[in-house]
Order: sequence, then structure tokens, then C-alpha cells
Amino acid sequence: MGSLNGTSIFRMPFFYVDLTSWAFTGQQKAHVVTDSISSLDAERLKLSSCILNRTIIHPNVEEAMKSYRKELFFQVPTRRAFINITPQVEECLRESGIKEGFVLCNAMHITASVFINDDEPGLHHDYEVWLEKLAPHAPVSQYKHNVGEDNADAHMKRQVMGREVVVAVTKGKLDFGTWEQIFYGEFDGRRKKRVLVKIIGE
Amino acid sequence: MGSLNGTSIFRMPFFYVDLTSWAFTGQQKAHVVTDSISSLDAERLKLSSCILNRTIIHPNVEEAMKSYRKELFFQVPTRRAFINITPQVEECLRESGIKEGFVLCNAMHITASVFINDDEPGLHHDYEVWLEKLAPHAPVSQYKHNVGEDNADAHMKRQVMGREVVVAVTKGKLDFGTWEQIFYGEFDGRRKKRVLVKIIGE
Amino acid sequence: MGSLNGTSIFRMPFFYVDLTSWAFTGQQKAHVVTDSISSLDAERLKLSSCILNRTIIHPNVEEAMKSYRKELFFQVPTRRAFINITPQVEECLRESGIKEGFVLCNAMHITASVFINDDEPGLHHDYEVWLEKLAPHAPVSQYKHNVGEDNADAHMKRQVMGREVVVAVTKGKLDFGTWEQIFYGEFDGRRKKRVLVKIIGE
Repeated sequence: MGSLNGTSIFRMPFFYVDLTSWAFTGQQKAHVVTDSISSLDAERLKLSSCILNRTIIHPNVEEAMKSYRKELFFQVPTRRAFINITPQVEECLRESGIKEGFVLCNAMHITASVFINDDEPGLHHDYEVWLEKLAPHAPVSQYKHNVGEDNADAHMKRQVMGREVVVAVTKGKLDFGTWEQIFYGEFDGRRKKRVLVKIIGE
Repeated sequence: MGSLNGTSIFRMPFFYVDLTSWAFTGQQKAHVVTDSISSLDAERLKLSSCILNRTIIHPNVEEAMKSYRKELFFQVPTRRAFINITPQVEECLRESGIKEGFVLCNAMHITASVFINDDEPGLHHDYEVWLEKLAPHAPVSQYKHNVGEDNADAHMKRQVMGREVVVAVTKGKLDFGTWEQIFYGEFDGRRKKRVLVKIIGE
Repeated sequence: MGSLNGTSIFRMPFFYVDLTSWAFTGQQKAHVVTDSISSLDAERLKLSSCILNRTIIHPNVEEAMKSYRKELFFQVPTRRAFINITPQVEECLRESGIKEGFVLCNAMHITASVFINDDEPGLHHDYEVWLEKLAPHAPVSQYKHNVGEDNADAHMKRQVMGREVVVAVTKGKLDFGTWEQIFYGEFDGRRKKRVLVKIIGE
């Protein structure tokens, strides 16, 4: 809080108005205040404040819910792959400016997965072998879905690994245990596919 | 923003006050303003505004969090079935008025699933065969849970397919990839069961 | 709403200001108002209000998003176990004071699970047998991940059962069907591990 010609000003993170140009001449004041407000782009500033006489009273705008959305793109040259996308999700979180909330990260395709596990190549090999045992790709003729395509097994592998993760955001960071990393699991690649990152919070 | 007898009015989606009845007679003004405010049902209007002199300053009420809840009911005549519930969830979203946020859609029963995949009957047949292989219904005697009931396999099938989905809401729509559809997966039907749709956002 | 010397006061849950000390002497008023506001700890009070002339106008602070975070700790003496953590999550929800929103509850370790199912020992036995069949622990040499450790199967079992649950909060309660209970699924125990409870809402 600063003081300007006897005027108290609350300055908070998202909002600042320079009052130096205000006249203070009785009734005239009202009009000047009105003009000052009018000249603000309320939408742009996310105006959540009022000006009383010569005091700016700034409510807790930081409490308001914010949202952020971004699509990540992948074109995997092989049919199957696991890709660590944690750095991209962290970049999204930084861009969002959100400090407390949830990140939803989901495959936008039904033959792919987003999941959280270990960034260890031996484990990824084990997953590949294990998923192929649980839901074998071949013979493709064993699946009714495979009329004109051959990816029925990918729809199954994705159900085992999951479509989405929801991650807590705390103090502006992904709130993770030591080894948690976010992966894109591709089960029917060799074409452009998308992952959605949606963040809500404050 | 409109102008009314030299009075600036900010009109925003959720809030409108007619100022035409206000007097503006020096000190009298304060009382009239007070009366005007008093006559509002602040709760009903979700009042998040103030009136300064003759200017309504409307903060970003739209940023405040809203929530919505609805139960969907299903009585499937067979033991197992997959039902596309996307239209019902979309209807919930419309009713909620929420434009940015998350939809949680979950089975309220532990022998059923809500999942996202393809609306293709061949694939649903493949899921049925595959889940029966991963967690066979018979012989029911193989499961300790089956004392007085026979649905242990349904508790397993539901874990493979998942209890819930969280879907992003963007500009008032389910933020989906091309082929994403929400399904209710019934694994122990022939009785009335419920799905919860809960939406939070702004 | 009360009345104090002809001054209307909106009192709402989070906010109360005693106006009795205010003078009301024309221009003097502005300064007194300013002083009154200055004496408030705006941050502490989550000030989201303004004072107009002699009326407190209190916006819907209750609509603002709140967040809560807690870690739960587990040290399971066996390799595998299922532990009902519903009472602990309910306690977190009470502490949070959140009435409408979402609870995220996730394992912070990648060899453990948080899932929702039935609190029935027969079923838990069936899950143990079934998961061991889907992703056998032995022989440990079958997994490339098992270099210096032997928990590759735990990484797989956790994917089948899931990392996390998202639960709706309605009227301050976990919005559950009759038999829904939250479990911590340990697949590589005998050491201290953590579960995250993060709640957002209002």
C-alpha cells in the first residue's frame, strides 16, 4: 500500500491504477473517477476492483478461477511408443500462471493413452511385451473391429493404460512423487495425433 | 457499456441495474444509492459489484466457480452392455451453463464403468470377448467374493475399463477428439444403476 | 442485513466490519473510510468487498475457488495389500471446508494404486489372485526392469487398478454410490509411501 497526495492505494499483483491524473474538486471528482474507469479495458484487466473516493479497493482477484488449454501434437514413426511429455506439460503449467488447481492431460485419440509411471527403458520394454500378451495385435482377424483397419488391439491396450491423468498443481508446480512422469502411450502411430492439456485453478 | 443521462453503465452477462430511477442531488445521492443496493437480493444476483457515484463497476463475476450435479439412471436388461451416454452428458453441460472447467462422469456402482472410446459395434463385441478372457464370469466358484452373488468378474472388468472419466470443457463444449464418445459399461445389469455427472468451472 | 444509525450493513459469512467508529461529516467521510479500510488486513480477510458511502457491499466471496492439500503416509509390512482410506479422505474434506468441487486422490509412487471398489475381503483376495495372473511377480527374471530390483510386476498391477480417483464433492460430502470406498493398493510395500489428497472447489 502506498500513499499519494493523501490517497491510499492498494496495489495487488494483477492490478494497478495510476491516480496521479485525478482531480479532486468536489463533485467534479465523480466524473473524473468515471472517466478513469471508462478508460480501462475491464475485460483485459480482469477488473475485479472498485475505486472509492480516492482509494482503490482491490478484491482477491487471485481467487478467481482461471483456465488454460493447449494441444500437443505427436507423429510417432512406429506403431507403438512411450514418450515422456512431462516437460511439455510443465511448460503449459508455466504458461497458464495457475498456482493451485488440477491439470487434465488426455489422449484425444482412442488408440492412445496418457499415463503416469517410471521413465525407465527396461520397464517400457516390459510394458510393450505385457500389453502384447494381454491384447495381441495379431492375428488381426480375431477382432470384429478390424474391417478395413487393424488397430482393435490398440483400443484395448489404451484401456489398460488409461486415457487420461489428473495431476494436482501446488504452488505452481506439478505435485508429483519422486518418480512420477507423464507419458504419451502410442498404440497405433505413424500418423499425426493430439493430446489435450487443460488446466483449471487460480 | 452504455450511457444514460451522462451516467456510464457497465453491463455484463450476469448483472444489470437500471439506474434511471436514481436521483442525483448531492448528499441525497448516498442514501439513494444505499437504498438501491438494499433493494437488491444480493444472494440471488450473486452480487459481486459495487456502485460508485453513478457508475456501476462490475467485477469478473464470470470467473467465480460454478458447480452442477446430476444422476443418470440405467436399467440394462442384460448382464453386460455398452451404452453411449455422450448426448446425456452434453445435455448436462448445457444445463450447467459452464463454459470452462471439468466434467467428472463416474459409475456410482462398483460393477460398472464409465469410459471413453469408439462408438463402433464391432469394437464393443471385441471388448466383450476380451474382458471375458481377462476376467471370466464362469465358473463363478473360482471367486471368493461370490458368496450369495456371482458378480466378482464384474468388479474386475470395471477396473480394466475404469470407474470414471474427466473431460475438459472449453467454450461450453466437451473438448473431444474426433472419435471420443462416453460410454456406460454395464457388467452386472438387470437392475437399476446410477451414473454421476458433476461439472465444475465458470 | 442489519441497520446501524441508518447505515445498511450486509453481513456475510467471511466478512464483517464494525462501522460504529465511522464519522460521517461530509468530505471528512472519505478519509475516515480510507482509514477504516487501511486498518484491515486485506489478505487475511480475503477482502473481496468494497465500502460505498456507509454501505458495505459484499460480493460472493464464497464463490471463490479454494484448494487443500495433504499427504497420507503408509508403511505396509507385506509386499501387497489393500487399505480402505475413505475415512482419511473424508477427514481431509472436512478440514478443507470445501462444499462443492473435486477431490483428487492419487498414489505418489508408481508401484501403488488408488482405486474405488468394494470393502469386501473375499473380493480383495480375488483381486490379489487375478492381478497375479495378469502380471505375475515371478519369475522376476522375465522383466528387464528388474535389474537391482524385483518390482516390475507392481508397475503393471498399478496400471490395471489405476493411479488416481477423482471424486465429486457435493454439500461437503464425498458424492458416492452406496458401496463406493477408496482404497490404497500397495504392490511393492515394506517401505514408507505416500498418497496425495488435493481438493479444489468452493
